[in-house]
Amino acid sequence: MNEAPTQSVHRYLVALQEELCRAFEAEDATGQFLKDAWERNGNDAGLAGHGTTAVLEGGAVFERAGVALSDVNGAKMPPAATARNPHLAGRSFRAMGLSVVTHPRNPCVPTSHLNVRFFSAGDVWWFGGGFDLTPYLAFEEDVVLWHRAAAAACQPFNAALYPLARRSCDEYFFLRHRGEARGVGGIFYDDLNAEAAEIGMPWEQCFAFMQSVAAHYRQAYLAIVRRRCHAAYGERERAYQLYRRGRYVEFNLVLDRGTLFGLQSGGRTDAILMSMPPAVHWSYRSPDAELDARLLPYLTTLRGRDWLMLSHP
Amino acid sequence: MNEAPTQSVHRYLVALQEELCRAFEAEDATGQFLKDAWERNGNDAGLAGHGTTAVLEGGAVFERAGVALSDVNGAKMPPAATARNPHLAGRSFRAMGLSVVTHPRNPCVPTSHLNVRFFSAGDVWWFGGGFDLTPYLAFEEDVVLWHRAAAAACQPFNAALYPLARRSCDEYFFLRHRGEARGVGGIFYDDLNAEAAEIGMPWEQCFAFMQSVAAHYRQAYLAIVRRRCHAAYGERERAYQLYRRGRYVEFNLVLDRGTLFGLQSGGRTDAILMSMPPAVHWSYRSPDAELDARLLPYLTTLRGRDWLMLSHP
Repeated sequence: MNEAPTQSVHRYLVALQEELCRAFEAEDATGQFLKDAWERNGNDAGLAGHGTTAVLEGGAVFERAGVALSDVNGAKMPPAATARNPHLAGRSFRAMGLSVVTHPRNPCVPTSHLNVRFFSAGDVWWFGGGFDLTPYLAFEEDVVLWHRAAAAACQPFNAALYPLARRSCDEYFFLRHRGEARGVGGIFYDDLNAEAAEIGMPWEQCFAFMQSVAAHYRQAYLAIVRRRCHAAYGERERAYQLYRRGRYVEFNLVLDRGTLFGLQSGGRTDAILMSMPPAVHWSYRSPDAELDARLLPYLTTLRGRDWLMLSHP
Repeated sequence: MNEAPTQSVHRYLVALQEELCRAFEAEDATGQFLKDAWERNGNDAGLAGHGTTAVLEGGAVFERAGVALSDVNGAKMPPAATARNPHLAGRSFRAMGLSVVTHPRNPCVPTSHLNVRFFSAGDVWWFGGGFDLTPYLAFEEDVVLWHRAAAAACQPFNAALYPLARRSCDEYFFLRHRGEARGVGGIFYDDLNAEAAEIGMPWEQCFAFMQSVAAHYRQAYLAIVRRRCHAAYGERERAYQLYRRGRYVEFNLVLDRGTLFGLQSGGRTDAILMSMPPAVHWSYRSPDAELDARLLPYLTTLRGRDWLMLSHP
């Protein structure tokens, strides 16, 4: 594909990073993003690129938030990227994306994750991404708001998009070794292009969907943050949050393909691990059976629920 | 091999667990091990077995310490266990071992790890294990003491054992994505039996070596604990310890074969993850360049040093 569309995705992602950082700072009031611009020439794996890792640490609302932009290219597609597309092996490629992870201080505010990415290799291209929510103390109305936003992000494009992307999200963000979902889900999609089975869409629509995903994430997550960030909590809720954050670490280090690929391919470790929670506890047993009883159904039996059908303001 | 030798290893490991728990409790003075005996019938992977996970949490000296005994058997050797021995595929087997991880509260006291294990499948058997040390504030005399103990554990058996097992330890406990060793090393060995290249030893000697490894670990580690556990420290050293513990999590969840095999094969997750530190911090940059300058040489340039040649009391 020619350069112009790829450049328009790049311009959009740069603007999105700026916008999200401003929005989180406005919400936080005290914390500021530290922006670390980087550039690299080809490493052993032949990857070159640039990006900006923006991290806010020690804020009033966000104990840690990361908004990382990267734009890498290579002379030869790595095997991990071509497992589903073996005919692309050895082609030159360009991959760009924005990743967002927030770890709020208040245990009533859930952790959130957004990723949007674009990949091109000659005339072949695809989009991927999505957003998911990880509560520590789950509130049903937040889950409903989140899934309504997920469905609304998909709605203009294809009726099959939300159910498919919701299922992909549920399947991907699942800790097999715990028998628990990472959170209450959302949407996740990959390999989206004009030829994609069931939901193939032309380039312009795929790009518009990327923008819709980011816009709905922002709106929904900030609504939940505003709703919960002044809620009272005590040592007990804080201890439970620190314990549950261990699950987030377990998912990202044991299972997340992007994290493992980044670490294995010689990526910038601190930038890749900006998704780690700032403070985490592990203990042999859960410290709070009552809070487990409140949270765990959302991560197990309630997973299949049709959140859109529930009536909430 | 017949049952008697296997049973003698089992009896030894049961006694070793008891002995180490008592020794750590005596050192700690306030903390107590909670012992969780478990038993399972065959799961999907056909594994059955029993064991006891002993965990001390919230002690005065040990913020967390785990001493886990397991004895599992299966009708069919899992592929992961037979990669180096493909002719064993499908055989019935028995694997038993003791794993120890300590996370002391005082940042002057290093984290320690011991593992000893025995595997048998018909007439084929092997031993494996070792010990390694992970300091947060490194003291050269502790490193020397540790490696002297490692060499002494090997000395009665074979002159090639310590250099080989030291090199295996350095190679295995290395975080490629950080370009750092996990700690200052020690010894690590696997597939040790009568036919092993370079250091083949008859069964009785291999078993005696297992006992020597555990005894030298115990003596050396308790000597270091006693030397350091009353050392004064402040918020700064504590913050650095919490940050460095992140590396321990990264190693165990991203790289450790035993942890990943356990999680993937449907093992008992809380028992497998007893190796996780009780409290951990991640930050985008190291919080302390000065303490880095003191610790990191031990994990990078000083790795190849001949610790045995240094004179320390």
